[in-house]
Amino acid sequence: MSTVFSFQQLFDFTKSVFLKIGCPEEDATLATNVLLSADIRGVDSHGIARLSGYVRLWEAKRVNATPVIKILHETPSTATVDGDSGLGLVVAPKAMQIAIDKANNVGTGWVSVQNSNHFGIAGYHAMMALEHDMIGICMTNASPLVSPTFSVERLLGTNPICVSIPAGEEPPFVADLATTTAANGKLEILQRKNAEAPLGWIQDKDGHPSTNPHELKNGGALLPLGGDREHGSHKGYALGAVVDIFSAVLSGANYGPWVPPFPAYVPMPTGMPGKGIGHFFGAMRVDAFRPASEFREHMDNWIRRFRSAKTAGGFEKVLIPGDPEREMEAERKHAGIPVLQAVVDDLKTLGEKFDLPLV
Amino acid sequence: MSTVFSFQQLFDFTKSVFLKIGCPEEDATLATNVLLSADIRGVDSHGIARLSGYVRLWEAKRVNATPVIKILHETPSTATVDGDSGLGLVVAPKAMQIAIDKANNVGTGWVSVQNSNHFGIAGYHAMMALEHDMIGICMTNASPLVSPTFSVERLLGTNPICVSIPAGEEPPFVADLATTTAANGKLEILQRKNAEAPLGWIQDKDGHPSTNPHELKNGGALLPLGGDREHGSHKGYALGAVVDIFSAVLSGANYGPWVPPFPAYVPMPTGMPGKGIGHFFGAMRVDAFRPASEFREHMDNWIRRFRSAKTAGGFEKVLIPGDPEREMEAERKHAGIPVLQAVVDDLKTLGEKFDLPLV
Repeated sequence: MSTVFSFQQLFDFTKSVFLKIGCPEEDATLATNVLLSADIRGVDSHGIARLSGYVRLWEAKRVNATPVIKILHETPSTATVDGDSGLGLVVAPKAMQIAIDKANNVGTGWVSVQNSNHFGIAGYHAMMALEHDMIGICMTNASPLVSPTFSVERLLGTNPICVSIPAGEEPPFVADLATTTAANGKLEILQRKNAEAPLGWIQDKDGHPSTNPHELKNGGALLPLGGDREHGSHKGYALGAVVDIFSAVLSGANYGPWVPPFPAYVPMPTGMPGKGIGHFFGAMRVDAFRPASEFREHMDNWIRRFRSAKTAGGFEKVLIPGDPEREMEAERKHAGIPVLQAVVDDLKTLGEKFDLPLV
Repeated sequence: MSTVFSFQQLFDFTKSVFLKIGCPEEDATLATNVLLSADIRGVDSHGIARLSGYVRLWEAKRVNATPVIKILHETPSTATVDGDSGLGLVVAPKAMQIAIDKANNVGTGWVSVQNSNHFGIAGYHAMMALEHDMIGICMTNASPLVSPTFSVERLLGTNPICVSIPAGEEPPFVADLATTTAANGKLEILQRKNAEAPLGWIQDKDGHPSTNPHELKNGGALLPLGGDREHGSHKGYALGAVVDIFSAVLSGANYGPWVPPFPAYVPMPTGMPGKGIGHFFGAMRVDAFRPASEFREHMDNWIRRFRSAKTAGGFEKVLIPGDPEREMEAERKHAGIPVLQAVVDDLKTLGEKFDLPLV
């Protein structure tokens, strides 16, 4: 069961909440746009469903509503940014803008961020590069839920990678993927339905394959992309590790099992080696490699060739990364955004706390 | 059945072959070191077993033994390089050196390469960055053997990604992975044994799961990392696509189904949109983000935490990416390199052609 809201309704409510916790006007608008870009693109697990979670982090004094974001260290093509415990929803686009500015100057820009918080969907930030005729790259580490191959300890987050690539007449290529077999959001859907997960998504506390979507509560873990060693889980583990290292060992954030948990009620890890969670952003000007018009023409050719590939029986078409989210966005812009009843109830409670009506 | 050779024996033979096809002395040494770095690290599919394949490409006039490698386009942090149809074994390390030089100047360097050929193992090139206290990144596209999710056409290569990261007292982190469930080399091992492949590695010509390691001869395909949609094959497809685009759409090389095949007897694709195959290299100075000593200390901490993680039953230890190849290198440096009899026979035939004894 769900209720359909217009984007504007969700925007007004969300922005009001961010203003109530003390965000400056401009930051509240930015954070709202970033957060709701998940809902509009169909990534419901990373959008307004998390709003009360961000507020609880603020209540726990783990989110600073008025951060002073600063560059700690830089070269012509790089920067390390201190997010000052700000909302990742605010810190991330500002850090990505620094990467874009550096790319404008010297061809590419690369920014590692410490002392931040959850930044919504990676896609928003990487896609900021597109309007500048740049390739955008975005990664973040996250609360440890994933066990490396051969291990039963949860040492990595779902650590997503997003790469967005502009095209010409075709829409952009936008690959936004958790480095696990299945993103945590997909598991949450099964949890709500009490449905079994496919083998290869989860292991139990002893490292045995499990189909129980609630297994993480019993000490289990999500599995790296690949699922098991025979199917390449060491590759998913390696990719998640690269995201962790670029986001946090480069920047001075926390890494591995020390990444602060998103739920404010979960105690912070002991012996934390850095500050907050870490992100990594990149921007590459297409015309730093070849004339942009040539690149766009060949990117269109690439996309059309793949989109027109012969399908296996039962499948209608071959998708280009970004297609499903783009289709969802077109639909939801027109028809509105359905919000699950449990989330609506949560938002109503949040609204009462701040004396804000949901609609 | 195999014969054990010392590194020096294989080095002398291989270098002599490269000299016979007309490589300059310095290039012959470089190509030999790159090629044999695969054998010494245990990646037998990418080492001396391919030597006669490179020679056949030269015979087919697809490899230029005296390439003039030049920069077509550049910015302070980027370059596009024309490999002049040279051996990838020569073009790649020279392009990586350009990335390293740019990183020395402006923090990072990024080089896309057109008009090249197979470059051996990605690890060699990415690891060149380590001695400069840099993170090294290396990708290449390759002959199309892999079908995108939902497709039966082979549109991507096994398109590997390698990321090498320096540490302090610990050995470096070196993730070198094909973006498929299993690298083609693993399939070749099963083919020689006539053993079944696990489900999730291969599909038949109609897109059905297959365990036949010879399925590619019947129009089948390798599967992207993840194996099937339910286990995230769209992520492996997206990663392989990013490698293809960075390596070839950025540089002006061939991409997708138009990547030239490695076997010289396979006809070239028609309607090729670029030149040769493409690579992509990156180098990031660690001290472009934070003091190198701090980075090394935290990288050691990262590695030690993961290496000491609690293992699942039956597994001795949790590995750090690069551990298996490093252990193999230590063993083979001491005990020599075993070469399969079929490869020895092939090398003997090659030696007869050039009047070169194998030992």
